[in-house]
Amino acid sequence: MDANLDVKNLKIPELKTLCEKVREEILAVTEQNGGHLSSNLGIVETIVALYHVFDFPTDKLIFDVGHQCYAHKILSDRQNKFSTIRQDGGLSGFPDREESPFDCFGAGHAGTALASAIGLCTARDKKGEDFSVISVVGDGAMTNGLNLEAISVSNEKPKKFIVILNDNGMSISKNKNGFYRFITKRTTSKGYIGSKKAIKKVFGKTFITRWLGRFKNFIARILGKDDYFDNHGFKYVGVVNGNDVGEMVKILSRVKQASKEEAILLHVRTTKGKGHKKAEAQADLYHGVGKRFKAESGDFSLALGEVLNEQIEKDNSIMAITAAMKDGTGLFAVEKEHPKNFMDVGIAEEYAVVSAAGMAVGGLKPVVAIYSTFMQRAYDQVLHDVCLQNLPVVFCLDRAGLVGGDGKTHQGVFDLSYLLHLPNMTVLAPSTAEELKDAVRYALSLNSPVAIRYPKGSDKQRQTSDFEVNEWEKIKEGDKVTLLAVGPRMVKIASEYANGHEGVEVVSARKLKPISTSTLEQIKNTLVITLEENSVIGGFGTYLEMNLKEIKPDARVIKLGVPDKFIGHGTIDNQLKQCGLTIEGIDRAVNGQK
Amino acid sequence: MDANLDVKNLKIPELKTLCEKVREEILAVTEQNGGHLSSNLGIVETIVALYHVFDFPTDKLIFDVGHQCYAHKILSDRQNKFSTIRQDGGLSGFPDREESPFDCFGAGHAGTALASAIGLCTARDKKGEDFSVISVVGDGAMTNGLNLEAISVSNEKPKKFIVILNDNGMSISKNKNGFYRFITKRTTSKGYIGSKKAIKKVFGKTFITRWLGRFKNFIARILGKDDYFDNHGFKYVGVVNGNDVGEMVKILSRVKQASKEEAILLHVRTTKGKGHKKAEAQADLYHGVGKRFKAESGDFSLALGEVLNEQIEKDNSIMAITAAMKDGTGLFAVEKEHPKNFMDVGIAEEYAVVSAAGMAVGGLKPVVAIYSTFMQRAYDQVLHDVCLQNLPVVFCLDRAGLVGGDGKTHQGVFDLSYLLHLPNMTVLAPSTAEELKDAVRYALSLNSPVAIRYPKGSDKQRQTSDFEVNEWEKIKEGDKVTLLAVGPRMVKIASEYANGHEGVEVVSARKLKPISTSTLEQIKNTLVITLEENSVIGGFGTYLEMNLKEIKPDARVIKLGVPDKFIGHGTIDNQLKQCGLTIEGIDRAVNGQK
Repeated sequence: MDANLDVKNLKIPELKTLCEKVREEILAVTEQNGGHLSSNLGIVETIVALYHVFDFPTDKLIFDVGHQCYAHKILSDRQNKFSTIRQDGGLSGFPDREESPFDCFGAGHAGTALASAIGLCTARDKKGEDFSVISVVGDGAMTNGLNLEAISVSNEKPKKFIVILNDNGMSISKNKNGFYRFITKRTTSKGYIGSKKAIKKVFGKTFITRWLGRFKNFIARILGKDDYFDNHGFKYVGVVNGNDVGEMVKILSRVKQASKEEAILLHVRTTKGKGHKKAEAQADLYHGVGKRFKAESGDFSLALGEVLNEQIEKDNSIMAITAAMKDGTGLFAVEKEHPKNFMDVGIAEEYAVVSAAGMAVGGLKPVVAIYSTFMQRAYDQVLHDVCLQNLPVVFCLDRAGLVGGDGKTHQGVFDLSYLLHLPNMTVLAPSTAEELKDAVRYALSLNSPVAIRYPKGSDKQRQTSDFEVNEWEKIKEGDKVTLLAVGPRMVKIASEYANGHEGVEVVSARKLKPISTSTLEQIKNTLVITLEENSVIGGFGTYLEMNLKEIKPDARVIKLGVPDKFIGHGTIDNQLKQCGLTIEGIDRAVNGQK
Repeated sequence: MDANLDVKNLKIPELKTLCEKVREEILAVTEQNGGHLSSNLGIVETIVALYHVFDFPTDKLIFDVGHQCYAHKILSDRQNKFSTIRQDGGLSGFPDREESPFDCFGAGHAGTALASAIGLCTARDKKGEDFSVISVVGDGAMTNGLNLEAISVSNEKPKKFIVILNDNGMSISKNKNGFYRFITKRTTSKGYIGSKKAIKKVFGKTFITRWLGRFKNFIARILGKDDYFDNHGFKYVGVVNGNDVGEMVKILSRVKQASKEEAILLHVRTTKGKGHKKAEAQADLYHGVGKRFKAESGDFSLALGEVLNEQIEKDNSIMAITAAMKDGTGLFAVEKEHPKNFMDVGIAEEYAVVSAAGMAVGGLKPVVAIYSTFMQRAYDQVLHDVCLQNLPVVFCLDRAGLVGGDGKTHQGVFDLSYLLHLPNMTVLAPSTAEELKDAVRYALSLNSPVAIRYPKGSDKQRQTSDFEVNEWEKIKEGDKVTLLAVGPRMVKIASEYANGHEGVEVVSARKLKPISTSTLEQIKNTLVITLEENSVIGGFGTYLEMNLKEIKPDARVIKLGVPDKFIGHGTIDNQLKQCGLTIEGIDRAVNGQK
């Protein structure tokens, strides 16, 4: 790709060509490196138009979630490095302040773009600086509680603040028809934006009267939205075709001017997966792509769907709940087999947990499947609504541990630290897909909160006994050192180490809390090494040590885990190395070099 | 009080008498025991009317936050115990499932009443049961992100679900005039509620045309709200005078019928502090009352306001931010002296933290003051937005540690467990008001995230050195055992123990993370006892032990703290006893009985 990146000087036809080139680059690199394909394809024209109209990094561009930032990376200062995205030492798949001044606010989780932008505007205005702040938010993320707080917290919004609501029809109403263009034309004319009584001017009483019969739902929706945003300090503009770069340039130029008077919410409509036929047709499936597109038999996520379907057959009171992760968590299988026992609440983890608590109070058995990193968002709800009331809610935390390409915003390496100190909580860490099934069956048999954590994929299928018989799985006996491993990768590394060394006891510590005395007594050796893909601070190692010392005061526990820093993107092998979670790391610990 | 509590059979005049009696009881007991006065006085008539119209506990009443549940406790099954509220072994100041079947969902934090109610309705409908679910939500809590998620997550709401929006003018628009009654009359007539085109029927085109000139703002607001709630599956009814028990009975009877067809949002207007002149006039101040009404000189909260005002004089880029806790955190003093450096975002902790992150990016120095228990709500934002980007945001966590009467939902005993594992975070625990000032000055001098945690009140004012010179404060030398105490109460107990025993070294561990090697080397003894009002799991004890063992492998660390259970309401002394955080507890630890 060698497009002239001085986007500001290009004419519309050249911008169109640029869009195509950016799209090709995204397609080529994403197929190679994995990442978010369809959302990035869908927003190319909007980003190109933003670069044409605004002056980055003087003006500030903030992405919500940040997974749709690829065109932005290509157009800013990282074109030549774009092929390294998500790889060891390469670009991050998300905006990252450490990477470039063009990334003024990092992201990874949803809901942060409005609050951070308003904060940035506050700073700008207080310091008397002059630039525009633009937030790009998808329709899915727009209704996250944090963004809703940012909208509702004040009726006044800063000037030179523009929110681009990127509506690709994944969450917001599917209503689309030719009327869009009609509305667009009017609502973005200079007169409209300049006017303080925009709706009146555009629609007029006669207009409303005339069209109400035929378009009442649509107009009601638009009026409703207008009214909603207008009442909260935004001038609402939309709906605009975000895939028409010419139209976007025209509109953004006006919006830029108009935002000097009032914050603007620009509602653009884009097609997810634009320019890639398969991705356009199956935008959900192509939302995030790895080098393979489907989970394999024996993977945790598929196993979760299978065991939930099996259990629902026996007990209709089980409800499978997710927060916009039905494919990644395997819950799509429940939706297919038992749609009435399935619920996707969108990007609203807090709501997912509290509504599950309500269901538990009402006698249902909710299972909430949310990635480890996103469950952070509902920490207070897990504590205050579920654990404090000791309600039988089962949490399935997929993507626990190191996550590879998604990097530091997505590492699932804090869940043990935020779960183990919660009273009433049982914490499980199966290491095979079959064991996850056992864990879910066991969890559903308890009448109290349970969290089950496991990474993407799975280990090979060892035969394992069920949780009620043995809390831990003894994999190998040994009389010199005990390796207590959490999860499939740690079990694998521990087993490999044991195969090459004498006297190594290997245990899969699949039940992390509570641990019975009889289980602790299975530990043969005084030297114990815990292995976990979690922060060493507040993780399983310290919890185990506290319990073990009660019955074995001379035990010496060495805790291997994620050190006290954020681990960037790259291969999981490389991330494990950074954490010393390797055969060499175990060897150093055994030989007292750590 | 000996009112006939069979509220269903009372006539309106008798209900009015009952209201007065309930109000007297609340006043008398709250003056004695402390608690939330004005919100409970304001909602008496609404609660009495609810008890008249509905059948609890068959029908379910869910409170948001739960601080306004006193009349409910008196009217349900706890009248005779009401005088014990907030005391050891007495009633909780919040709804509590363990206390009564009338408390179907506990609370303490804001935002949970809609999500939990919808979950409960889901369970009810799935099981084919038949009862009404009523959520009572204040205007302040209504705009918490979790409630906003519950509203927006679906356009369909369950039937027999009623939300009572208790608008006491603390957050929502102050607009009130005679027009209220007019609207109320019409919007609650049977015709209105039964109609699917309610707005049209009530207002009509002619009506709108006629009144638009004079009342356009008000109508726009009402229409906007209607439209907002109607678009999200609620039938909006309001505004109703929630302090008129007769009117409330009439309206609730109709709403109960209408909710069989559609979920209802009933907007009631009440007067906070109703029936208590001082509380009516100063509702803010009387929101929560202890046995004394004002913080004393030398208390942490006043010290925070003072030091922030002092620092703002020197550096105008400091912004003091709170989430509806300006009095409790002492930030009211900043609002008074430097209103432009103060911001109260309402009950929106997530927004508070992310907007602060945005301000930090923009070059301001935000200080976010939120109680320890409520900061749980923003755990992910502290991690993902502040720590991950290593932004200079200072968090002041008041009410850290045990909190006494507010009990288990409000204990600030998890913050060390959710803060210490966050990379880049500095954690401080001053034990005097002057030391808090030093801590804030030191925190503002760093260019990275800092959390400062401290309880309500303060210890006597010891003279302490500043943080930059000594991370820890050595209070007493001793060669037998080292007591490492976190916070004022632990320092006090440790000092008292040391006064009665030989060889006890006492250290105020005021800097919890990071800890330098030279600081660790100040620990003279091999036996170390950590004292913290925080969960022993993942708390300071385990963090200290991990660090200390690096330089002192033979150290033996005994960790005293909050055990792995929720600690109920009562006196702080009693709570400390339950945790073994006493002189006797230290003695047992020193003598190896723990």
